[in-house]
Amino acid sequence: MKAIIPYSHQLLQEVIKPGDVAIDATCGNGNDALLLSKLVAENGRVFAFDIQQQAITRSREMLEQQNIKNVDLILDGHEHVQKYVHDTAVAGAIFNLGYLPKGDHSIVTTSDTTIEAIREISALLKKGGRIILVIYHGHPGGAEEKDNVLHFCQELNQKHYQVLQYQFINQVNQPPFIVAIEKLI
Amino acid sequence: MKAIIPYSHQLLQEVIKPGDVAIDATCGNGNDALLLSKLVAENGRVFAFDIQQQAITRSREMLEQQNIKNVDLILDGHEHVQKYVHDTAVAGAIFNLGYLPKGDHSIVTTSDTTIEAIREISALLKKGGRIILVIYHGHPGGAEEKDNVLHFCQELNQKHYQVLQYQFINQVNQPPFIVAIEKLI
Repeated sequence: MKAIIPYSHQLLQEVIKPGDVAIDATCGNGNDALLLSKLVAENGRVFAFDIQQQAITRSREMLEQQNIKNVDLILDGHEHVQKYVHDTAVAGAIFNLGYLPKGDHSIVTTSDTTIEAIREISALLKKGGRIILVIYHGHPGGAEEKDNVLHFCQELNQKHYQVLQYQFINQVNQPPFIVAIEKLI
Repeated sequence: MKAIIPYSHQLLQEVIKPGDVAIDATCGNGNDALLLSKLVAENGRVFAFDIQQQAITRSREMLEQQNIKNVDLILDGHEHVQKYVHDTAVAGAIFNLGYLPKGDHSIVTTSDTTIEAIREISALLKKGGRIILVIYHGHPGGAEEKDNVLHFCQELNQKHYQVLQYQFINQVNQPPFIVAIEKLI
């Protein structure tokens, strides 16, 4: 059975095609932005958000090394997505909720801004488009964010969105799990 | 995203090959036994259990019409699986927890016998083999069975088994969901 990260990538690969617009809502080290960049290809566009300069700098270096030119790195919170992405439909977006790996573990995503960002991006999704949440919740505050985000997702109108939870349930140490939102109409 | 029944079939198709042994733990109308029969092919064997004569009779008629000869229909509870299946490794098994569709809705699977059957079949699984539980839980007693089965599965040793929950979480009317157990070693 596919592990969490490969399955999150599969869910993106199934719906993001060349020429599409995609969003990395938590750019971090830029690995997901790189994946999205390849999926949307040279005529597509990726918007990648992070509130930490360290993440933007690291990602810029990595993407430049790979000669990637279709990613906009944005030093701002993902809750402000509509300041940067408008007049376009979004095929796919990914969030890694938690802290920046190899970064300051006290700087974490929080439910208010995460939910605001999900709400804004869900309104931008094209039919069949997906938001993938990879929810890390073992850190302080992680359980609260997980519960609030899950509650928000459970309340999404099933006529407009399908929401899948994909989780390994017999593992210790609160491993991450996936919540995937797909726009139906 | 794959709906529950197609995804349950995918999880079986990925691991059951010609010549294998498979188990339909809740035969019902025989549809899953038919799928398993095709996967194990003529040199394989399917053991299909049901406690209701009506289910066995219906399934026998359907399988005979399709000229299926590799399914043993067994009128007994799935908790007695080891009376019938031994000295062989099992590649895959499926349970539909709840009541027989178009049957007597007061006759339902219950957690004690379900868990006993999962325990017995998990011991028979080959490496990489899977038990797929499709958990219907909207009926009286369904919530209790669901909770007990989930608790049992969550306690399975992660060194020996991987347990995946696959569930749409924004739907009304308590739709079914999947718990998939894969033997790792």
